[in-house]
Amino acid sequence: MSRPPDRRAFLAALGGSAALSGVLAQSSRAEADLRPASQRRLLRVSADRLARRLADLSQFGRNADGGIDRVGYSDADASARQWAAQQMREAALDVRIDAAGNLIGRRAGRDATLPCIMTGSHIDSVPGGGNYDGQVGSMSAIEAAACLHESGIQLGHALEVVIFQNEENGKVGSKAVRGEDPKLYLDLSTHSGRTVREGIRFLGGDPDRVATALRRPGEIRAFLELHIEQGAVLEQRRIDIGIVEGIVGIKRWAVTVHGFANHAGTTPMDQRQDALLAAARFIDRANRITRSAPGRQVATVGTLSAEPGAPNVIAGRATLTLEMRDLDLATVDRLFAQIRTESDAIARETGTTFEFREIYKTLPAQTDAGLRRVLADVAESLSLSTLAMPSGAGHDAQEIAQLAPMAMIFVPSRGGISHSPQEFSAPEWIANGANVLLNAIVSMDAMR
Amino acid sequence: MSRPPDRRAFLAALGGSAALSGVLAQSSRAEADLRPASQRRLLRVSADRLARRLADLSQFGRNADGGIDRVGYSDADASARQWAAQQMREAALDVRIDAAGNLIGRRAGRDATLPCIMTGSHIDSVPGGGNYDGQVGSMSAIEAAACLHESGIQLGHALEVVIFQNEENGKVGSKAVRGEDPKLYLDLSTHSGRTVREGIRFLGGDPDRVATALRRPGEIRAFLELHIEQGAVLEQRRIDIGIVEGIVGIKRWAVTVHGFANHAGTTPMDQRQDALLAAARFIDRANRITRSAPGRQVATVGTLSAEPGAPNVIAGRATLTLEMRDLDLATVDRLFAQIRTESDAIARETGTTFEFREIYKTLPAQTDAGLRRVLADVAESLSLSTLAMPSGAGHDAQEIAQLAPMAMIFVPSRGGISHSPQEFSAPEWIANGANVLLNAIVSMDAMR
Repeated sequence: MSRPPDRRAFLAALGGSAALSGVLAQSSRAEADLRPASQRRLLRVSADRLARRLADLSQFGRNADGGIDRVGYSDADASARQWAAQQMREAALDVRIDAAGNLIGRRAGRDATLPCIMTGSHIDSVPGGGNYDGQVGSMSAIEAAACLHESGIQLGHALEVVIFQNEENGKVGSKAVRGEDPKLYLDLSTHSGRTVREGIRFLGGDPDRVATALRRPGEIRAFLELHIEQGAVLEQRRIDIGIVEGIVGIKRWAVTVHGFANHAGTTPMDQRQDALLAAARFIDRANRITRSAPGRQVATVGTLSAEPGAPNVIAGRATLTLEMRDLDLATVDRLFAQIRTESDAIARETGTTFEFREIYKTLPAQTDAGLRRVLADVAESLSLSTLAMPSGAGHDAQEIAQLAPMAMIFVPSRGGISHSPQEFSAPEWIANGANVLLNAIVSMDAMR
Repeated sequence: MSRPPDRRAFLAALGGSAALSGVLAQSSRAEADLRPASQRRLLRVSADRLARRLADLSQFGRNADGGIDRVGYSDADASARQWAAQQMREAALDVRIDAAGNLIGRRAGRDATLPCIMTGSHIDSVPGGGNYDGQVGSMSAIEAAACLHESGIQLGHALEVVIFQNEENGKVGSKAVRGEDPKLYLDLSTHSGRTVREGIRFLGGDPDRVATALRRPGEIRAFLELHIEQGAVLEQRRIDIGIVEGIVGIKRWAVTVHGFANHAGTTPMDQRQDALLAAARFIDRANRITRSAPGRQVATVGTLSAEPGAPNVIAGRATLTLEMRDLDLATVDRLFAQIRTESDAIARETGTTFEFREIYKTLPAQTDAGLRRVLADVAESLSLSTLAMPSGAGHDAQEIAQLAPMAMIFVPSRGGISHSPQEFSAPEWIANGANVLLNAIVSMDAMR
């Protein structure tokens, strides 16, 4: 699954073709400088203070289960963002809220002509969420800025710490930064009860000027997001740091199986057109086909309903969703073709027909190969083990990847549990990730 | 699947043990008389008049789909029963409504000391039902009585034509006749919006005296019900008459599969505890196990729900119903034990657990071997082909089987479709069944 470094994308993000060869040369020189740099004194975040930041943040929207209800644009969300702005100020960042309602703290660089290095995540939650998803990356970004301030280090590039708004309900803030057409999202309703337009205003943005939140290619030298894995791979393999190869693309289909509803007592087993039996075989074979191929693609049937839905009536119709994810949508398409062929066989076995409708698609977002090497080198310098892995979940980083070279750092999630009050990453795991983030920022700054 | 004649049940229904040996002798003599009787002139119903009876009945509760909405205790039901009472009177039957609201037309026999021969069915429908289920047996019974009247035949036994009330929503009328505790049904609500108590009063019964509807063993010489098959076996095999071996027993289980809900993107395929995948394998294997055994047992999973039920979340829980039917519940129990063992294997494969709860059980009702032979002989005399078969559906006859020897005659259902406006049996198929019913009544009358 590993792919050759996509240097072209990395470079294209920095501007027109005239700049390419020069940047390539700089980049090569910077990488050549890196190994000695990794021998230099390494910075360390304060693990205790980072844990305290997370604990303090967990008070906003805390619920009876020990999790949080802090959906985007809720009162808890707005209060948490005000608190986070204060944390940024204490880390000597210049704080602003962009027109889209994103919270941005900036530390000026020595060279005002250079693009910024950007890092951050989100602090809104799903309903009944946990205390780590998004929050680990947001608090670690502030902690990294605080460490630079306390260490008296001024980078060449400006550093921007961003807490995007409403990641969980549509990645609204990062989409605005990437330049999504506001008509596509401003009037959507959200879990908060507010529309996006109302929510942006509620957070201090200006929905009428939301297009000004757009960042242009060339303004961002690199974007880094630290996040919990939300899967169990790192914990099970006892690996400290996941270096994300890319964020998977997703396709979803609505699948309808047409059979014939009939009496469960009077219709012999060999005369049935049982839509639920056909759906059951489909679920099993889609699973086997996806697993039998090499790679880390996943396929999931998460919903199913059978009609008419009575214990004594053979189902005449079954509807389900099939979702497939992979870093390479060509793999998804190839496996889906096999699954579809298999569904023809199931249809023949069961006297049913299958109907497929594609209902959702997101393209994969590749991380930048040069940035991945920086992360790997920094982790090695910190004596942390690493694993290259895909991100199976979506992140703000995939929106920013359309503007700038992007990379992601994963830290382990206990049991792979996420979007739950049981979500947990140990303070030392988080500190490991924050140390990689901090030192990677310094290393990237040297790459100019 | 064929079973030895259960003469003991046949005889026990006729009274105390003192009567047994005498009755046995009579019965044997009657059977010995039968073959010459089958050479006698055969009676024939008026196929046209029977078709007209059904067409007239179909006006009560007719809906836009060409089917009927005539649920028990509805206005359409009450009107249809008043019309049916008039049909009975025109067939020279003495009409009464018992305390349970059943409509009964009686033709006196020559010997008032003999029990009656009873035949009938129901005319209420499921919501959105068809024009044949129950109605064919009810109208054929009236037609048979009319033919006896017109032929000037007075039987030795009285003949009672009964149209039970509310078969589709609990076999209420036949249960009352069989002696079910009224407390178990009087206060149940029904599709009509009326409780059973209100419904019985609405149909002209007396819910306070419903226990008087009870018939005692010995009052009924034999009960015969003609019914559409509601399956496709007879039509597909081009057989005129089904001779029912018995009405299947039913068991139902609520099955809960416990897995672990998790992120469909971040949880690798080999680390899932996917409750819906486990449920799918269960459905497939329950089907295969049930089909691989000899016999005509059926197993059906007609309902399934997955939680939390989102395309991007692995199902943490799946709930489904398993229903199994057979003439012999020992077969059901044996196959269920295999299915349960298989579920242990699926649980191991998928990291889930299965939980089973029996939620429903009805015992099988055997038909009487002597009556089946009468039906077979009569059909042969009429040059009609026959097939011994189970009834996969429940019928009023299974309640009456607890009081009296019982048999059922099936006629083909086009496509096996029932409980639908598309329900259909051709007039000639119905007339065949009615002719078997009529001549069987005469033959049974001779068996004394």
